[in-house]
Amino acid sequence: MKNIAVLGYGTVGTGVIDVINTNGKVIKDRQGVELNVKYVLDLRDFPNDPIQAKIVHDYDVILNDTEVSIVIEVMGGVEPAYTFAKSALKAGKSVVSSNKALVAAKGTELLDIAKQNNVNFLFEASCGGGIPIIRPLTTSITADEVMEITGILNGTTNYMLHKMNTEGVDFNEALTEAQRLGYAEADPTADVEGHDTCRKIAILTSVATGKYVDFEEIHTEGISNVSAEDMKYAKKLGYSIKLLGTSSRIGEKFCAMVAPFLVSADSSLYSIVDVFNGILVKGNVLGDTMFYGSGAGKLPTASAVVADIIEAAKNEGNNIFDGWKDEKLELIPIDDVSQTFYVRVKAGLEDNKAIVTKLFGAVKFITLDNKDNEFAFITGNLTESKFRNSVDKIENVESVIRVK
Amino acid sequence: MKNIAVLGYGTVGTGVIDVINTNGKVIKDRQGVELNVKYVLDLRDFPNDPIQAKIVHDYDVILNDTEVSIVIEVMGGVEPAYTFAKSALKAGKSVVSSNKALVAAKGTELLDIAKQNNVNFLFEASCGGGIPIIRPLTTSITADEVMEITGILNGTTNYMLHKMNTEGVDFNEALTEAQRLGYAEADPTADVEGHDTCRKIAILTSVATGKYVDFEEIHTEGISNVSAEDMKYAKKLGYSIKLLGTSSRIGEKFCAMVAPFLVSADSSLYSIVDVFNGILVKGNVLGDTMFYGSGAGKLPTASAVVADIIEAAKNEGNNIFDGWKDEKLELIPIDDVSQTFYVRVKAGLEDNKAIVTKLFGAVKFITLDNKDNEFAFITGNLTESKFRNSVDKIENVESVIRVK
Repeated sequence: MKNIAVLGYGTVGTGVIDVINTNGKVIKDRQGVELNVKYVLDLRDFPNDPIQAKIVHDYDVILNDTEVSIVIEVMGGVEPAYTFAKSALKAGKSVVSSNKALVAAKGTELLDIAKQNNVNFLFEASCGGGIPIIRPLTTSITADEVMEITGILNGTTNYMLHKMNTEGVDFNEALTEAQRLGYAEADPTADVEGHDTCRKIAILTSVATGKYVDFEEIHTEGISNVSAEDMKYAKKLGYSIKLLGTSSRIGEKFCAMVAPFLVSADSSLYSIVDVFNGILVKGNVLGDTMFYGSGAGKLPTASAVVADIIEAAKNEGNNIFDGWKDEKLELIPIDDVSQTFYVRVKAGLEDNKAIVTKLFGAVKFITLDNKDNEFAFITGNLTESKFRNSVDKIENVESVIRVK
Repeated sequence: MKNIAVLGYGTVGTGVIDVINTNGKVIKDRQGVELNVKYVLDLRDFPNDPIQAKIVHDYDVILNDTEVSIVIEVMGGVEPAYTFAKSALKAGKSVVSSNKALVAAKGTELLDIAKQNNVNFLFEASCGGGIPIIRPLTTSITADEVMEITGILNGTTNYMLHKMNTEGVDFNEALTEAQRLGYAEADPTADVEGHDTCRKIAILTSVATGKYVDFEEIHTEGISNVSAEDMKYAKKLGYSIKLLGTSSRIGEKFCAMVAPFLVSADSSLYSIVDVFNGILVKGNVLGDTMFYGSGAGKLPTASAVVADIIEAAKNEGNNIFDGWKDEKLELIPIDDVSQTFYVRVKAGLEDNKAIVTKLFGAVKFITLDNKDNEFAFITGNLTESKFRNSVDKIENVESVIRVK
């Protein structure tokens, strides 16, 4: 029997308890691992919940109990998660975390401490919720050089963009509906401004390359400037607008960014709608493979957490997870990255066709039937800096979105 | 350095050599595993290929060389693959196979021999080509009871059905084109009659449940009776026709079958087109997750084979892969399985509406504009035996396809 302690009895924490209660017998029979939740750490009490018998308020009770071999950190945020995780690893306990903020900020150090102490620091649930992606990257896509990872990594924004696309509502209305359904938080900044996606693509890129990515170096834009109007143009062009976290190899360096993109109907990411997540991995010999599923939600996320607990339990005293080394992955400055861009302009097409063609190379123009004094265009392939130089010379630019 | 031997220098075998040549350094740096191909077994000689220096015609050379720790079986077919794999495992060598025929027929015994000899028998590439699916099922989706696995597992038939759907060509024309492009073999029986898919869904179900599935017990139908006409009805109904291998849990038993199905646009399998494969796994807590990619092809398949070689190399002397036990999974007889069905009839709708409604419960009727004396309908949920009883009472039935 493996005694475990769960730090935080919030959404994911209650999910972990649910999954162990529901599937404990299946896990014992099939995986040979019997899990016993010995403690749940939370500031609050839960007098009407059977969990109350296991609630502790003092982390030292868990830390000093040598019977506890795995600590499950599902609190979120960097502190006190970092302090708790670090001391657990140093005490010879494996740590499982669903916390992307912790992993992105402190993963390098925690992986190193885990290695030194011959325990494991696992975080499958930190990216893509229930979708298996960290373990496939580290144990399945091992014969390849990963050339690109591109993901729809945030269910909240994907839901909002889908709603804007299918129902023609604007950003604010989509946000209100997402909040009403519990998909978006009262303060939605981390989701809609892309910070959540940024941390996830940093983690995935670190895992895929074995070098750590400083998430603060990743150029990050959110979806708050995406309008229902842009959706209409995108649709007419055969595209859909998605918030992507993307990183791709250019020689030994990587180009990484988070931004809304026009995604073509040919892409397997195009049909990832609603709150679902999808992660496309391109290997130099494998080609494209995609992982799809529930990127959030209590039970799917808890399923991934419990799978990590099982992996830690099966590998007690054996550091199995390399993660990445304390060597920084060099990112290409955003100015030097080449893209194509969609631009919408509040002006007549005929008056501007010549200058747009001259400035942006090969371009595709598009107008909507009911919009006289407006047009959009797709540029040729340009570096970000060249594009910005050129777009500054056009008046009445309403919006700019990159094209994948 | 790990010395390996490749049995068979066909498509997958040459792919394995290519992947090791291309990514050997990346694999060494990132995975810490240096691979050396010491022998390639083939009946033929390859005088103009550098591989000739490693070609042997006698398997005993490999078997008796204690330096060879991993044997790669990429010959296909049950014999002599079975004899070779068995003797390698007994000699303390791990075996990696891409051979679904071998794994479906002899997997139980080979897994057991591997365990007894503390080596590994790995076969990621046997299902879904390059798509990671076996390892995710055994190491990631471990906190769940798997409720269903449904896959488009054969690229050849998916290409043909896609072509019939988008270009309106009939089965024979689609087959000819698939053969011209090298997607279908001269004798396409194994693909078009569903035998290939049958072995794959048997393997996946065995891995997911830990009990072996006798592939010969799986009800298997191919796509040779699917007509371009049915495609038109399906499209009008908002469906697409796909060849699925599917198994789902009903209590402690499973219902498994291979057949063409009408798949609705809501399904994540709907958008798997062309030669691609997609495998949907439903967990009781995870919900739906899907794995998508190149289900065949030299390099993607070889990528999965080499990933298994790396896994075997990292775990020398340590049997890590449970696979399944020598306990048979009970399948529900096809007669007792409940489904909904699409039926096309060469007769007037009005003359038949009453009897169809009476026989099949709640039904949805559909006619095409240019077809006067023909209609189709979708039944309510019926057992296979009840359905067959009822359909026998209708005259001029042209085709029957299940609905997913």
